[in-house]
Amino acid sequence: MNDSTSQFHKKTGMPPGTLIHVGNRKEDKTRISVIDYNSTNFEEYTCKKIEESFTLKDSKTVSWINIDGLHNVDMIDRLGKNFDLHPLLLEDILNTRHRPKTEEFDNYTFVTLKMLGVSKDRKSIITEQVSFILGENWLISFQEKQGDVFDIVRERLRGSMGNIRKLGADYLLYRLMDIVVDNYFFVTEHFSDVTEELEGQVLTDPEPDILQRIQRLKKQLIAIRKAVNPLREAVSLLEKDTKLFKEGTKRYLRDVYEHIIQVNDTIESQRDSLSSIMDLYHTSVSNRMNEIMKVLTIISTIFIPLTFIAGIYGMNFEIIPELKWKYGYLGVWGLMIVIFIAMIIYFKKKKWL
Amino acid sequence: MNDSTSQFHKKTGMPPGTLIHVGNRKEDKTRISVIDYNSTNFEEYTCKKIEESFTLKDSKTVSWINIDGLHNVDMIDRLGKNFDLHPLLLEDILNTRHRPKTEEFDNYTFVTLKMLGVSKDRKSIITEQVSFILGENWLISFQEKQGDVFDIVRERLRGSMGNIRKLGADYLLYRLMDIVVDNYFFVTEHFSDVTEELEGQVLTDPEPDILQRIQRLKKQLIAIRKAVNPLREAVSLLEKDTKLFKEGTKRYLRDVYEHIIQVNDTIESQRDSLSSIMDLYHTSVSNRMNEIMKVLTIISTIFIPLTFIAGIYGMNFEIIPELKWKYGYLGVWGLMIVIFIAMIIYFKKKKWL
Amino acid sequence: MNDSTSQFHKKTGMPPGTLIHVGNRKEDKTRISVIDYNSTNFEEYTCKKIEESFTLKDSKTVSWINIDGLHNVDMIDRLGKNFDLHPLLLEDILNTRHRPKTEEFDNYTFVTLKMLGVSKDRKSIITEQVSFILGENWLISFQEKQGDVFDIVRERLRGSMGNIRKLGADYLLYRLMDIVVDNYFFVTEHFSDVTEELEGQVLTDPEPDILQRIQRLKKQLIAIRKAVNPLREAVSLLEKDTKLFKEGTKRYLRDVYEHIIQVNDTIESQRDSLSSIMDLYHTSVSNRMNEIMKVLTIISTIFIPLTFIAGIYGMNFEIIPELKWKYGYLGVWGLMIVIFIAMIIYFKKKKWL
Amino acid sequence: MNDSTSQFHKKTGMPPGTLIHVGNRKEDKTRISVIDYNSTNFEEYTCKKIEESFTLKDSKTVSWINIDGLHNVDMIDRLGKNFDLHPLLLEDILNTRHRPKTEEFDNYTFVTLKMLGVSKDRKSIITEQVSFILGENWLISFQEKQGDVFDIVRERLRGSMGNIRKLGADYLLYRLMDIVVDNYFFVTEHFSDVTEELEGQVLTDPEPDILQRIQRLKKQLIAIRKAVNPLREAVSLLEKDTKLFKEGTKRYLRDVYEHIIQVNDTIESQRDSLSSIMDLYHTSVSNRMNEIMKVLTIISTIFIPLTFIAGIYGMNFEIIPELKWKYGYLGVWGLMIVIFIAMIIYFKKKKWL
Amino acid sequence: MNDSTSQFHKKTGMPPGTLIHVGNRKEDKTRISVIDYNSTNFEEYTCKKIEESFTLKDSKTVSWINIDGLHNVDMIDRLGKNFDLHPLLLEDILNTRHRPKTEEFDNYTFVTLKMLGVSKDRKSIITEQVSFILGENWLISFQEKQGDVFDIVRERLRGSMGNIRKLGADYLLYRLMDIVVDNYFFVTEHFSDVTEELEGQVLTDPEPDILQRIQRLKKQLIAIRKAVNPLREAVSLLEKDTKLFKEGTKRYLRDVYEHIIQVNDTIESQRDSLSSIMDLYHTSVSNRMNEIMKVLTIISTIFIPLTFIAGIYGMNFEIIPELKWKYGYLGVWGLMIVIFIAMIIYFKKKKWL
Repeated sequence: MNDSTSQFHKKTGMPPGTLIHVGNRKEDKTRISVIDYNSTNFEEYTCKKIEESFTLKDSKTVSWINIDGLHNVDMIDRLGKNFDLHPLLLEDILNTRHRPKTEEFDNYTFVTLKMLGVSKDRKSIITEQVSFILGENWLISFQEKQGDVFDIVRERLRGSMGNIRKLGADYLLYRLMDIVVDNYFFVTEHFSDVTEELEGQVLTDPEPDILQRIQRLKKQLIAIRKAVNPLREAVSLLEKDTKLFKEGTKRYLRDVYEHIIQVNDTIESQRDSLSSIMDLYHTSVSNRMNEIMKVLTIISTIFIPLTFIAGIYGMNFEIIPELKWKYGYLGVWGLMIVIFIAMIIYFKKKKWL
Repeated sequence: MNDSTSQFHKKTGMPPGTLIHVGNRKEDKTRISVIDYNSTNFEEYTCKKIEESFTLKDSKTVSWINIDGLHNVDMIDRLGKNFDLHPLLLEDILNTRHRPKTEEFDNYTFVTLKMLGVSKDRKSIITEQVSFILGENWLISFQEKQGDVFDIVRERLRGSMGNIRKLGADYLLYRLMDIVVDNYFFVTEHFSDVTEELEGQVLTDPEPDILQRIQRLKKQLIAIRKAVNPLREAVSLLEKDTKLFKEGTKRYLRDVYEHIIQVNDTIESQRDSLSSIMDLYHTSVSNRMNEIMKVLTIISTIFIPLTFIAGIYGMNFEIIPELKWKYGYLGVWGLMIVIFIAMIIYFKKKKWL
Repeated sequence: MNDSTSQFHKKTGMPPGTLIHVGNRKEDKTRISVIDYNSTNFEEYTCKKIEESFTLKDSKTVSWINIDGLHNVDMIDRLGKNFDLHPLLLEDILNTRHRPKTEEFDNYTFVTLKMLGVSKDRKSIITEQVSFILGENWLISFQEKQGDVFDIVRERLRGSMGNIRKLGADYLLYRLMDIVVDNYFFVTEHFSDVTEELEGQVLTDPEPDILQRIQRLKKQLIAIRKAVNPLREAVSLLEKDTKLFKEGTKRYLRDVYEHIIQVNDTIESQRDSLSSIMDLYHTSVSNRMNEIMKVLTIISTIFIPLTFIAGIYGMNFEIIPELKWKYGYLGVWGLMIVIFIAMIIYFKKKKWL
Repeated sequence: MNDSTSQFHKKTGMPPGTLIHVGNRKEDKTRISVIDYNSTNFEEYTCKKIEESFTLKDSKTVSWINIDGLHNVDMIDRLGKNFDLHPLLLEDILNTRHRPKTEEFDNYTFVTLKMLGVSKDRKSIITEQVSFILGENWLISFQEKQGDVFDIVRERLRGSMGNIRKLGADYLLYRLMDIVVDNYFFVTEHFSDVTEELEGQVLTDPEPDILQRIQRLKKQLIAIRKAVNPLREAVSLLEKDTKLFKEGTKRYLRDVYEHIIQVNDTIESQRDSLSSIMDLYHTSVSNRMNEIMKVLTIISTIFIPLTFIAGIYGMNFEIIPELKWKYGYLGVWGLMIVIFIAMIIYFKKKKWL
Repeated sequence: MNDSTSQFHKKTGMPPGTLIHVGNRKEDKTRISVIDYNSTNFEEYTCKKIEESFTLKDSKTVSWINIDGLHNVDMIDRLGKNFDLHPLLLEDILNTRHRPKTEEFDNYTFVTLKMLGVSKDRKSIITEQVSFILGENWLISFQEKQGDVFDIVRERLRGSMGNIRKLGADYLLYRLMDIVVDNYFFVTEHFSDVTEELEGQVLTDPEPDILQRIQRLKKQLIAIRKAVNPLREAVSLLEKDTKLFKEGTKRYLRDVYEHIIQVNDTIESQRDSLSSIMDLYHTSVSNRMNEIMKVLTIISTIFIPLTFIAGIYGMNFEIIPELKWKYGYLGVWGLMIVIFIAMIIYFKKKKWL
């Protein structure tokens, strides 16, 4: 985190709109891919230079410009100038630690959110920032690195099947956001699996490292919440305020909103689960402690008095009448056995055995 | 859960309105039953094909189409086309994990909620999704499996008694929702019984498995809350916004709303109860621990000094004058008894005995 | 609770307005008492049949019909028909588990709330439902059983003193509600006394049964909250919306509202007190545990080494030179005393003694 | 508290406006002092009878009537009649347990709040109720007992310096309220001091009585909150609604409001502090427990095996070859020393020593 | 803190607008620096006397008057008189313990907030109050001591580069506030580092002083929250209400607002982290306790029975047949070894070893 945060703070005091890429560089080359379509035509190509896409701003067809990799600050700056984008907006795109939000500008609407994924070792949550700028007939999307998550939409667009090509850029944005939100379910399900597994283990074999694992899960949950929680408000804002969204698309946005709420509910109940597991762990530990103490107490309580009796007859007094009795030794054994049995009965009654 | 969630995610990226049944298939055959009535006429029959019900959309009589079993996706699709239903709505009906909600569309209103029940082994809560679409003169209801819970309303409709047949489809919907909500009381009462029983057991016999049972109850409570909590808001929305509900029916909706709040209150106080029981359990355990420690301490504290004295006179020094005294042995016994009594008095004073 | 709840659920699926008395039958006979008055006239009598009171609906004088006992469902049904009462309202009156609420109807306003009291053994809270229907010139009140709590108002009405007879039915309702709310203070004060007593006991003599008593108090507190909390909102609604209340009476309602808030505050601080006592108890217990452990440790730590030394010289080796020393025995005693004193000093330093 | 609460409940069922003094009688004699002023004139005198002040109601000058001592119910009743005060308002003034509030009446505004102080033994918070009635040109203030806290304002009024005499009764009320609120800072600072001191002590010397002291502080904090919390809302109401306050004075009220918020913040952070101290205490205690256990374990673990070895060679078997070895005794000592050292090393490794 | 708080309370009862510097005097000399600019001209100078800056009030150019050091109360009073500042506002500037807030006056807007920093020993948070008064064409800023944090803006103003000089005083205020808020990120990052370090240490080496360090961090967090939390509301107010802010600048304010929210989010998750660490610490401690108990139990449980056996054969009865057996001694050793091994197996099974 260190080097990227220092990047972040190089910015302090600089004028707003000073574009600096904040985050880890996840992609070597910036890749610009364009899809341009309407209900009858479809064109798909890759740009070498961002300038090739500039004419799309005023074309009648719906244009989707997708940019993978955010480190080419200069290019994004030129893009911003052509599309009249607000400097703060560009700043937000480049700051990959930004909170999810939507903001309405005069001629376009800005959406930034987090794509979530599970790392390959299944031990951490991967967060990638995805931003969208929706204009009248165009949509620009920014990803930190090239991914295949939007391919399913590209496929749909290529085919003439379905009505996606009949609808505008707002519907395209909905479809892409929907994919991102649907991915949240994967993550929460992965999380549920891990939590359930952990719970089972706590009950059968409560080892100290479980605490660290709970701690790790908590942190992951916080990361997910940070992505999902602000999005809720953001999508609700999108749904209410904007003029770029057609009435029909808004109902779809409502659907996305409901999904976010559902993810949110799941997160909340998983928080509860984690703290329940924590409780279970503590109780397991204290139950084991109890059992240890019981064993110690039982053994001590039985043998300490017996040892005392043995001690008595180990004394060297000249006159200890019992020592001379014929059945003295047997008698002592008898006494000890009686005490032993009395103790056992006592423990049984106390339910310690 | 696994296979159904993977069903769920087969959907990621597919166009909205792609109908896939999400959930466990609880019914083999889809059953379509129709009740068509007004204040004077009453007709009841079962459809083989969904198409047989299509004419009911524009009939003047009130028509209730009930569909048991959600896996016949194709049929529901055709139904949707005939009744002009929004694809997202159909999706929600088929997704049996959907949150309870109500949504107003142009010509109809959609309600989806959860029927709750207690499983036969009384160990888990059964959740079934029930959805309703209310139109001008018709009501379509969807259940996951055939049930007899609505039979009491059918009975009422068959008899000409009461005024249910004089009132419209909105009143019919209220009656059905009322039944679902009334069922919640059964579940919370079952829950109260189990909780009370558990509480008694914690006080008399705190065994470690109680923790797991509390954990299980917590999960059930979460399941109930998931069904009830969103419904509160949903019914409140229904009550305020819709145009399909007559003024008179709204007061009845208000009544349903109050019932939901009451269920909600009960759930909250049962959450409190559970955490109280948890506390009780912990304290019981720590009290037992205390008692164990006390016994250990008393026994040790009494016998360790006595054993030491016995040890003293078990030493083999050539010159230990006491050993030769006539009443040495008796004297040692006397000393030990004095120490013993002193200890007992000490413990009594400390209230350990 | 069992038989009454099953009563409650006999209702599931029945048409709304099906009147069934839900609750325990607290009164054998239903008693109808009428007070009819204006500033100059006053009449008081008991009705044998509810029909005798029906003419009061349209009389110019203020009429207060008080009904003690709710099991005569049929009578209440006839009353409802005469006064044009909504079936749901009658249902709510008969359901003695209903949440406190107020509801405005076209020609009358409905208020239902809980009378609280302390049981004779001072161990539980008694809840009785009291309902009011306020019309233009009449007030009908329903109590579960005959009580003397409203007698003070009857007394006032009988005397011509004061201005209660100059004011309308709305003021009468206020006076009756005020009595009910004032009673809450008795209950919370009783509660405070019990809590304080408990706190004292925890500090002086923390016995395990205290936990059960805290548990019992918690449940009582929940019962009180269930009565008081919804009333707050209900009275606030009454104050704002209704047309039956004169401007002057509203200020009195405001006063009732403030009293409810005060009761509420008290309840909240008593919740805090209870959990503080719980904490205190736990700490007392753990402090005692600590002390027990200290005693055990001190005794063990002193005598175990001494016993070891005695053990050494109890060995039967042929050659143990010390055994033959003249002052061997004395020397061992000396060593032991030195160790003993060293231990005591150590414990003093550690502040264990 | 007992006798005063029974006073309180003597009232149940009595007509509103029945004046009874609720609280402890803190003053023997009621004292009425009047200050009458405008920018040019100033008059100050004490009334024997309340009637002497009645003419001030309609005077053009600003009149401040201050009443110390609330038990003279009759006098306050007469005052109320002359100034047309609402009976409920008088009731609130006399009920010294009333929540702080402000209420706007037609011709005057009522403010009641709590003066807080620290008792002389610095162990409890003293609460005194102060009420104000603000009219067009007059202000009546009620205090439970004679105090010197408002003297600083009297001093200001006497001098012609400053502009307090140029401004109206509303500004005078602000000045008096400001003094009361400023006093809250004294109390919270006292509280901070005590808390800090306590924290230090927990870390150095955690004695059991600390718990009781925390408990006492908690109760004090609750008392302060009860005084401050409702005042926040009350002042905010004053600021928004009333017509008696001039625009200029409102900004001053805003300042009072901010002070209350600041006090509130302080209270909240002191609540946190107290529970932190509680945590610290618990941990201190459990750390000590740990240390005790460690000592016990170390001593036991070292000497129990050694004592066992001594026991072996204290046995009286006829044939124990070692007993006859020349270096048997030395050998046993050697063995014991080796075990001892091994144990020490083991404990060092475990970081118990 | 003591002397400054007593300063604070010297004020009680004094008329509002009595200017007293509340806080520690951090600067010896008050320094007044002025920057006066528009898009074409730029002037920068230091004033000896505050009166030199008075003409700037009505100049057309944008004037920034920066005052370092707040103890020169008299000078600030004169400044206030010239710029028609409200006495309460001046009071707030001088009271360095004031909550962050913004307040709109007729001709100017007042902003006061906290600059946060980390102390040199990295053990505490330094808080400095910064206040701004924004007029039509002027901005007055107050700092407790001379700092270089605003130098970056001065640099920008000096150069003609960028458009900061083309924009008004409102934009200048935004830039300065932005710097203050950006600094918050430094502090929270420092905090994150310390927390992470602490977490690592708890897991590897849980020493008792960790508790004190957590306590210290908690207090720091409270200090940060006190600075950040009210600012959120304050900036939101600024954004909505004021007329001095141009539409364009408001979007920048929105950006500051988002930064504050982000800082706030971070603070909340760090609170969670701290309590997680606390939990971890407690569990580490209790795990160690457990281990100690296990060792004690194992040693005791093994040797106490063995010692008992040795004790038996140390008795001096005349007739103990075993003592005379040829293999008696060996047999006892055999028995003991069997018991020892049985114990070990038992412990292994219990997973204590």
